[in-house]
Amino acid sequence: MNKFSKILGVTAAAALVASPLLAQDAAAPTEASRDTIFIFNSLLFLVGGFLVFWMAAGFTMLEAGLVRSKNVTMQLTKNVALFSLAAIFYYLIGYNLMYPLGSWTIGTDDTGGYLGAFGPALLEAVGITADEADDIGYASTGSDFFFQLMFCATTASIVSGTLAERIKLWPFLIFTIILTAFIYPIQASWKWGGGFLDSQWGFLDFAGSTVVHSVGGWAALAGALILGPRIGKYTKDGRTVPFLGSNLPLATLGTFILWLGWFGFNGGSQLAMGTVGDVADVSRIFANTNTAAAGGAIAALILTQILYKKVDLTMVLNGALAGLVSITAEPLTPGLGMATLIGAVGGVIVVFGVPFLDKMKIDDVVGAIPVHLFAGIWGTLAVLLTNGDATFAGQIVPIIIVAVFVFVVSLVIWLILKATMGIRVSEEDEVTGLDTAELGMEAYPEFTRG
Amino acid sequence: MNKFSKILGVTAAAALVASPLLAQDAAAPTEASRDTIFIFNSLLFLVGGFLVFWMAAGFTMLEAGLVRSKNVTMQLTKNVALFSLAAIFYYLIGYNLMYPLGSWTIGTDDTGGYLGAFGPALLEAVGITADEADDIGYASTGSDFFFQLMFCATTASIVSGTLAERIKLWPFLIFTIILTAFIYPIQASWKWGGGFLDSQWGFLDFAGSTVVHSVGGWAALAGALILGPRIGKYTKDGRTVPFLGSNLPLATLGTFILWLGWFGFNGGSQLAMGTVGDVADVSRIFANTNTAAAGGAIAALILTQILYKKVDLTMVLNGALAGLVSITAEPLTPGLGMATLIGAVGGVIVVFGVPFLDKMKIDDVVGAIPVHLFAGIWGTLAVLLTNGDATFAGQIVPIIIVAVFVFVVSLVIWLILKATMGIRVSEEDEVTGLDTAELGMEAYPEFTRG
Amino acid sequence: MNKFSKILGVTAAAALVASPLLAQDAAAPTEASRDTIFIFNSLLFLVGGFLVFWMAAGFTMLEAGLVRSKNVTMQLTKNVALFSLAAIFYYLIGYNLMYPLGSWTIGTDDTGGYLGAFGPALLEAVGITADEADDIGYASTGSDFFFQLMFCATTASIVSGTLAERIKLWPFLIFTIILTAFIYPIQASWKWGGGFLDSQWGFLDFAGSTVVHSVGGWAALAGALILGPRIGKYTKDGRTVPFLGSNLPLATLGTFILWLGWFGFNGGSQLAMGTVGDVADVSRIFANTNTAAAGGAIAALILTQILYKKVDLTMVLNGALAGLVSITAEPLTPGLGMATLIGAVGGVIVVFGVPFLDKMKIDDVVGAIPVHLFAGIWGTLAVLLTNGDATFAGQIVPIIIVAVFVFVVSLVIWLILKATMGIRVSEEDEVTGLDTAELGMEAYPEFTRG
Repeated sequence: MNKFSKILGVTAAAALVASPLLAQDAAAPTEASRDTIFIFNSLLFLVGGFLVFWMAAGFTMLEAGLVRSKNVTMQLTKNVALFSLAAIFYYLIGYNLMYPLGSWTIGTDDTGGYLGAFGPALLEAVGITADEADDIGYASTGSDFFFQLMFCATTASIVSGTLAERIKLWPFLIFTIILTAFIYPIQASWKWGGGFLDSQWGFLDFAGSTVVHSVGGWAALAGALILGPRIGKYTKDGRTVPFLGSNLPLATLGTFILWLGWFGFNGGSQLAMGTVGDVADVSRIFANTNTAAAGGAIAALILTQILYKKVDLTMVLNGALAGLVSITAEPLTPGLGMATLIGAVGGVIVVFGVPFLDKMKIDDVVGAIPVHLFAGIWGTLAVLLTNGDATFAGQIVPIIIVAVFVFVVSLVIWLILKATMGIRVSEEDEVTGLDTAELGMEAYPEFTRG
Repeated sequence: MNKFSKILGVTAAAALVASPLLAQDAAAPTEASRDTIFIFNSLLFLVGGFLVFWMAAGFTMLEAGLVRSKNVTMQLTKNVALFSLAAIFYYLIGYNLMYPLGSWTIGTDDTGGYLGAFGPALLEAVGITADEADDIGYASTGSDFFFQLMFCATTASIVSGTLAERIKLWPFLIFTIILTAFIYPIQASWKWGGGFLDSQWGFLDFAGSTVVHSVGGWAALAGALILGPRIGKYTKDGRTVPFLGSNLPLATLGTFILWLGWFGFNGGSQLAMGTVGDVADVSRIFANTNTAAAGGAIAALILTQILYKKVDLTMVLNGALAGLVSITAEPLTPGLGMATLIGAVGGVIVVFGVPFLDKMKIDDVVGAIPVHLFAGIWGTLAVLLTNGDATFAGQIVPIIIVAVFVFVVSLVIWLILKATMGIRVSEEDEVTGLDTAELGMEAYPEFTRG
Repeated sequence: MNKFSKILGVTAAAALVASPLLAQDAAAPTEASRDTIFIFNSLLFLVGGFLVFWMAAGFTMLEAGLVRSKNVTMQLTKNVALFSLAAIFYYLIGYNLMYPLGSWTIGTDDTGGYLGAFGPALLEAVGITADEADDIGYASTGSDFFFQLMFCATTASIVSGTLAERIKLWPFLIFTIILTAFIYPIQASWKWGGGFLDSQWGFLDFAGSTVVHSVGGWAALAGALILGPRIGKYTKDGRTVPFLGSNLPLATLGTFILWLGWFGFNGGSQLAMGTVGDVADVSRIFANTNTAAAGGAIAALILTQILYKKVDLTMVLNGALAGLVSITAEPLTPGLGMATLIGAVGGVIVVFGVPFLDKMKIDDVVGAIPVHLFAGIWGTLAVLLTNGDATFAGQIVPIIIVAVFVFVVSLVIWLILKATMGIRVSEEDEVTGLDTAELGMEAYPEFTRG
């Protein structure tokens, strides 16, 4: 069946004939019923949520592909474990800390909320009626929890890439617990829980260029500074030694997975799909998200060709991801052209950001800081380009507040972990590779050269 | 847009203004219309179905990652072929054998159904009206068929992992045909087709801890016993030689795919999404399924650290899968905390189940028996913890009946296959690897050492 | 919850009690409301669209698995880049060229449209009301754009596989731009934009066996002819040297991804999901699509066993894909049995088509021409088997017109590219491998032998 037949009315007319519109009087409902809206909204969260879940696999493949083969098993282990811990601790602590629904431990809705509520997440009972729904005008609590949990886990996934190939497993996991139980939910409550960044500053961050991506970036940056670079990455005479990713198809697969998951990440953040306006907005968001990724990839493609005379695949992949991060703060209001450009700037940021970090001797194994932090800041400021409700102060001040909070708290946690249990493997273990030294299990026991 | 603005009513209020609720009198419908419910239910099956389809890829990657590289092409071939055969034979025979809709060949709905109807599946005609739907109160037959088919294929996928690295291709495929055309559908009809386990025993198995997972496990166990362990797996002095998985990123990817697919597996098994209660239930199921997987993974993580002083990634992956199997019999009634614990017990079962099988000299290449059979039994019993309608006899007796039926029939089939065409490759071929010996095609021709 | 309880009315009855059907008079609406239909249709495009997006990852993995390891990075780069370019140029030029909505540059709806409209795609505004929707009887423009874009990108993906391992990056990307901005949209407008193949010939091609798959195939064939075979592929004494795929698990993963994405490809092409008839049709399509893939895989499995005495995994994978292509022109009207057979013929076509091309010394690295072109033609003709509205002339003439247009234009473009910038890497670079020679980045730097 082609679209044209629809537009010419062949099918549409048939639908009309059979529809209540003709059979009944003008008072017949044309809009979706209350329950239908509730179901559509919940469905958006369920589908969006499983797509964002899938991003956990994307980060895992991306990172497994970009580390050296001797550290792959460890990277896989960290990613499965961090997602699982995020799931448990967001349930136990994070969800209500992020969404206190007015019951702030510190602050109020009116004067500004600062610290949410404590207590585990509680879903609606089995088989509720419409009257028993927590909020019949919104969506099922279980679908909301499922969706929001995935954002928390995404934040943790960002950190693991930067710190790969030298951090010990358990301190990393302890940091993950603190990040997903406290750091992420507290700052997210300031915006998405209706806290002071939302109520006092009018901060706009649709799906989390700042609230998710820069937060992961700041936590990763703090860790990278405390942890130091990998042995041999920066020579005494100031050169940066390229450590090659061991499996680029996996890294590419990871990028495609993330790209796919981002439709849920941004599209689901519309938080509603039960009206013509909402579903059309979700559609805009899907289209904009896609084109921003394309813009980022092509910008990196062209730029690396010009700068290095050779296209750099890892830059192209990170360019696509930076395009996605860039559009995340405002995937709705730009047109397709502007969305492409916003993404393209993200791609440019990555191409310059990666060598900049190396110049600073900050060793970010997979480029997560340029992708999620630098492009996250850009994306949050880019809201000003297309959304008339955004103000410069309303964007930049929250960026700085979140930065200071996350970076300082993360720094303190990393320092405590370093002082108590140590966060870095021994020099010998790092050279051997974490897989053999820490886990006793190679990722590719039959493949790697001697 | 943040959740908070929804809750404060900013958007919700706007929706109300534009909604029929205010424009019309109190009698205006608030619930979804009959057709809308039908569409939502069908959509649940379509989305759930493609997610469960995706599990076929998950099993394939998991198994390809856990076998040695010399047997990878064969494992891939078996998985693509088994899914395809399941699709065809479930259509030709299985579907109506499983869902006779009262037309039992042996038994009746009232006295207990034992053997369903024979004949290929028949979908509704093209472009039906509501009156022509097979069951306007349920969902389209095509969506139901699509969804149910995937469960049948899942059962077959479970078997291939256990028997890897030594079974011949064609006898395995013949067993697959019998499993998907007869064994799975017949026992599934006893519960999900309304047969005697459902009507006489009140057996509760929401999405198939027993009906799907343990069935795959029993069939695999019967095969493993007849087939015997791989050459060199168990030494004469009683040691178990570890045969290392050749590609752990693939195994991890497979686990993530299965985890993703399980949202469709359990969520779709609600069988309805057109009311507030149903979609809220589906949401609970998504959240519980996720946390059970997390619980299983973390339990295996901690336990292997304690027992072996090193985290074991393959145990963590199987722990997550065991968590998923454990929650499958009742993903709805537990709260999040209980679901996490039910999954965690699954993870513990795997950590002890894998060495237990080795002690018994039962060679289960990927750990499918602990994951799907042991955790499947646990999950079926765990229904008693949270579902007041479950009785101990109503759970344990069906577990035993299904066990005896599937195990004995499978054993007989494997023995017949062994006696007639032989099921095991020659010793020489096994040492060489099935890829070169049976298929003449290496999975990684450029990678593996000499 | 089991299906049986639904059918016995346990849940359905509960739903009825609570439904408007009993509470109101017979005039109460049973059908979905206008807005609900609009939302369902848009949702079909969003879900279908992200599934077809996912096919880009499928092609990438398939091709990365089937080329030699020295050309993998290049193949990954081409695939990410081609998708990104397709996204941008379909937005800038392709969409309105394909869907002029009557505003033909050459032709009219009545006399036949030949060349669509020029200008970038324009989405609906943010937060539209139902009255502001471009077509309230259809779906949101953003969702339609998103969905249709993915088909355009699919066409480009087909080309990259055939031309792998010897084509230069930039000429390939320039061809991609022309293909996605002009060639694909123009010919697609002839059918799906309501142009002359639709209005004058009554051509039937539901989801694009011709409009998408054969178009990719013809463009690839033209390229392969101009480009010539890889060095050493065909010896002087007429033998074909097998060049082995470097990573068969990736190729298998790619096939599963494509299979999954095809549910969106064919199912979404119903273009509507808001009535009982439409969702039942989408369900038929899902079931038929799946069984056609299974038929193609099993046909190739059996045929290679018979012909070569060994099952050939790459033929089985391509058989499944050919089954999918075969059912794409008409996934709705066949029953399950006929759909299986139509797919099986596709599998047979591949098994004979691959060696046929080799005999012609046309070097198609991944078998894309047999899969997408040969099976695409077969699928377009197979419409005649089950759809009474199809005529032989109405199918064969459009097949030929599209063939001539795409093949000739592609040939000219390839020749111009060859004459101006050159399309083939140097002999030395080809032997070295494109990854090192053109990109300076190996896909598996630690794995490959010497």
